[in-house]
Amino acid sequence: MDFNDVKKEVIQFTKDRNWDQFHSPENLAKSIVIEAAELLECFQWGSDYDINAVKEELADVMNYCIQMADKLDISIEDCIMEKTKKNAEKYPIEKSYGSSKKYTELQS
Amino acid sequence: MDFNDVKKEVIQFTKDRNWDQFHSPENLAKSIVIEAAELLECFQWGSDYDINAVKEELADVMNYCIQMADKLDISIEDCIMEKTKKNAEKYPIEKSYGSSKKYTELQS
Amino acid sequence: MDFNDVKKEVIQFTKDRNWDQFHSPENLAKSIVIEAAELLECFQWGSDYDINAVKEELADVMNYCIQMADKLDISIEDCIMEKTKKNAEKYPIEKSYGSSKKYTELQS
Amino acid sequence: MDFNDVKKEVIQFTKDRNWDQFHSPENLAKSIVIEAAELLECFQWGSDYDINAVKEELADVMNYCIQMADKLDISIEDCIMEKTKKNAEKYPIEKSYGSSKKYTELQS
Repeated sequence: MDFNDVKKEVIQFTKDRNWDQFHSPENLAKSIVIEAAELLECFQWGSDYDINAVKEELADVMNYCIQMADKLDISIEDCIMEKTKKNAEKYPIEKSYGSSKKYTELQS
Repeated sequence: MDFNDVKKEVIQFTKDRNWDQFHSPENLAKSIVIEAAELLECFQWGSDYDINAVKEELADVMNYCIQMADKLDISIEDCIMEKTKKNAEKYPIEKSYGSSKKYTELQS
Repeated sequence: MDFNDVKKEVIQFTKDRNWDQFHSPENLAKSIVIEAAELLECFQWGSDYDINAVKEELADVMNYCIQMADKLDISIEDCIMEKTKKNAEKYPIEKSYGSSKKYTELQS
Repeated sequence: MDFNDVKKEVIQFTKDRNWDQFHSPENLAKSIVIEAAELLECFQWGSDYDINAVKEELADVMNYCIQMADKLDISIEDCIMEKTKKNAEKYPIEKSYGSSKKYTELQS
């Protein structure tokens, strides 16, 4: 299924239930972190995981991200590409190759 | 830009830096919640926000979600649609219209 | 140092800066999760950690917990003891010994 | 009840169930953020809250903080006091009075 159709379905789901009134950017930010923590719960005691649980929680995170982008009238695709450009400057390949260091700790 | 192209760019970014080794599902789950909390920080003391900061943090959350889906070899689009179907059963329109209650608290 | 004195110092710190106005229970809940995610960041890519960073982030989490308890006029000590009692019922020793399962999954 | 006694009870609870094996600092960091997000869930759609739910979730956060401090053999009290000293330097009263700005944004 195309991502644009997914976005439409998800937004329609919210409209059908008149939930838009609860979806302030602030409440959506809270919701994203709440769902992200439920995703983390799949890994609370180790690296093993239930793939079905992970899929559901990942879907919940993404769902609220789509709601947030819709609410703010921004393009998810553009946001990611702009940030990737920024990250490419913060993490030049030659400096960051194979390193998990934060850009503030990368040696010049 | 098409979401499929965005996904390709984001995954290529990781490959170029040989960061795949750090991206276990568990570490990605941690990363998603860490970025989600940075998104929440935009709203820490109230509902006002800096749209540019929000866009960057939302991009970071989505970026790690894409990495997670790639790592687990699952389709983001399918995950969201499957969960939406489940949610439609948990939250029938007539019961949940205009209510922010959890499905466990909805009256039958 | 006694924990009661610690609590007094932390609350005084807030009063001295007139920050009480920002400390609604909701904002404190956001702050606790934001700091908790910074603590998790110490372990983002693995189990190694910088003990000094961990100490600072743990202190930030606890600090906001103290602020929350003060704001709600509840006793941290009583909250923990009451919840421990509840947990003892949900997790009887014979059933939960050596198991990381959630109480909803413990066999009867 | 004295906080030192609370700490003892909480640690004994874990020992009685042989749960110490799950309590690596990394897993405890995950647990703290998971519980912090459950606390935030009490405020997901607004500032109203159920005080009993808040007390339980706050207790869970504090419980894991105590476990973490015990595991790392550090004093919660000292951590908080040391961090408060640092914060006093980052946030001098005259500069930060009545302001919710981050120290990096405070005017000199």
